[in-house]
Amino acid sequence: MQTSAMMRPIDWVPATDNDPGYLAILDQTLLPGQSHILQIRTVDDLVDAISRLAVRGAPALGVAGGFGVVIAAMTTPVDRLAGEIDRIRDARPTAVNLAWGVEQVRPHLGESSASLLSAALQVRDNDIAACKRMAATGTRLLDELLPAQRSANATLLTICNTGALAAVEHGTALGVIEAMHLAGKLHRAIACETRPLLQGARLTAWELQRMGIPFDLIVDSAAAGIIARGAVDAVLVGADRVAANGDTANKVGTFALALAARYAEVPFLVVAPESTIDVATASGAHIEIEDRGSAEVCQFGGRPTAPHGTTALNPAFDVTPAELITAIVTDQRVIHPARGQRPDDQTPAR
Amino acid sequence: MQTSAMMRPIDWVPATDNDPGYLAILDQTLLPGQSHILQIRTVDDLVDAISRLAVRGAPALGVAGGFGVVIAAMTTPVDRLAGEIDRIRDARPTAVNLAWGVEQVRPHLGESSASLLSAALQVRDNDIAACKRMAATGTRLLDELLPAQRSANATLLTICNTGALAAVEHGTALGVIEAMHLAGKLHRAIACETRPLLQGARLTAWELQRMGIPFDLIVDSAAAGIIARGAVDAVLVGADRVAANGDTANKVGTFALALAARYAEVPFLVVAPESTIDVATASGAHIEIEDRGSAEVCQFGGRPTAPHGTTALNPAFDVTPAELITAIVTDQRVIHPARGQRPDDQTPAR
Repeated sequence: MQTSAMMRPIDWVPATDNDPGYLAILDQTLLPGQSHILQIRTVDDLVDAISRLAVRGAPALGVAGGFGVVIAAMTTPVDRLAGEIDRIRDARPTAVNLAWGVEQVRPHLGESSASLLSAALQVRDNDIAACKRMAATGTRLLDELLPAQRSANATLLTICNTGALAAVEHGTALGVIEAMHLAGKLHRAIACETRPLLQGARLTAWELQRMGIPFDLIVDSAAAGIIARGAVDAVLVGADRVAANGDTANKVGTFALALAARYAEVPFLVVAPESTIDVATASGAHIEIEDRGSAEVCQFGGRPTAPHGTTALNPAFDVTPAELITAIVTDQRVIHPARGQRPDDQTPAR
Repeated sequence: MQTSAMMRPIDWVPATDNDPGYLAILDQTLLPGQSHILQIRTVDDLVDAISRLAVRGAPALGVAGGFGVVIAAMTTPVDRLAGEIDRIRDARPTAVNLAWGVEQVRPHLGESSASLLSAALQVRDNDIAACKRMAATGTRLLDELLPAQRSANATLLTICNTGALAAVEHGTALGVIEAMHLAGKLHRAIACETRPLLQGARLTAWELQRMGIPFDLIVDSAAAGIIARGAVDAVLVGADRVAANGDTANKVGTFALALAARYAEVPFLVVAPESTIDVATASGAHIEIEDRGSAEVCQFGGRPTAPHGTTALNPAFDVTPAELITAIVTDQRVIHPARGQRPDDQTPAR
């Protein structure tokens, strides 16, 4: 789709005679002002890029984890290799995809370097295919869930960035919104700015503009009132970890959107690849929520927003209870947690 | 109470031989960086100060409205007086207190200038007394509503600024938090930063620091998850207009706090003077919600946060349905909307 004809925000740059190859990451902390490509060649580079959110978004973190194993193998003595790979896996705690991507490629460490790279490329290609399937499934599901006059002219609200920037070519929740637009079924998107780091204002707004999708930006706290006044047909979000019972960790603010959607009887959809489902985590109570410290909250663009000495709580995620989630759309199935369906209670039907 | 020993954010500076007197307003748009006092001497000055939120907060707007009639009478030919007073009354649409303050003083226009000023001073003094009564009542109510071990060591969450800066000497919701602190019953306050204009980060954090109250700042969207994990004993907010049925308009983001409080079974209290109750407005559906335009959302401190050309929805308020409000604490009574009690269904019992 030409609307997504942008550079991939994460990809492998193959070896040449003079270069062993590297992981190219579009530094998302500089968007939309600058498009700067990081050449990631060491584990330190990668851990730094992940920690400071130069690469973010659950699917993209999975791809980063896969290529991270390749980079670790290229640069680390064997006796330190496992520890270095663990360091990548643990660079951020909440999104399960990072660990998942690492573990997809780690079993290939004993193979040739070409075979190892091939496994990482497969993680990348699987993500591209998975996002396409989610977009198709999500669009069909909205047709089912919304009255006909609404599904043909829908206003869809989202938070954070779940577009191509959060994945490889197309996004998850924003991938569904893109597909609705391409199908002529989207009236308008509403993007939550997503404090403290403004992934919605900086990244989603940028992607929506590039795709030619009409949208309005809002402060996160305006969403509930806008949903309650009937201006939103469905809320679509991504996920960083889905527990076995369907409880879902996603960007902080998601839970309040789910509460508002339930109050207004508006569908609340989670769009995430199967790799985000972590059946080893029983419920949301067991998901570790990363607190990123005071600085992100107490300043903006380096300028203080609060008096000197102010401390902040800064959970980067929150947990939406399964009972508030109308459906989880994966690349393989649709799960209906609000009806009591659990992600771990069936074999994925391809 | 020495903890509030700060200059009043709004007050009348009496006439001298050389000066007819003026309304002094602490310009809240410059806090916490600068403490600049505006000398308001004309209707234009006042409308400008109200529009750009140099003075804000429902009780303070009531006081501004009252003194506004005095200023209009001092500076406007009689044939234009009514129109000028209406212009003050209509400078912001959502907070009923502004119109209420105007209408408290307008009937005294036929009297001497001393008598007119006296009526405006009475509005000011009544606000000071009302806030003291609300603080006492709110503290007693928390004792009733919370288990003993919590009411003696409470963590209270609030949004926007409802402190002395929003009133004259003490605040509404923040006045209750201050009283809890002075009674040794407060563990900690949690202040929502309150996008887009950051009244929580700029003003509430500043007041809490000056009062020596331990607190954490959070982004607005973090509140729901923090409430859900049991870290908050009660949510206390102010109000800009309470409809006859108890639906309450307050700073955007309040509704989501009420949803989260209900989900977590945590008391949700509105603290507002009787003058905020507007029995002429049947329900929240009839409250005009001010939209303040795109600029506040798409930039911060003059620096763009979103790509050029981005538009925003910017409702400054939302409406919390009566059924989600545990209690409304006024200077005269406690109303229990969640139990079906309506603000208009009883004579205030003093």
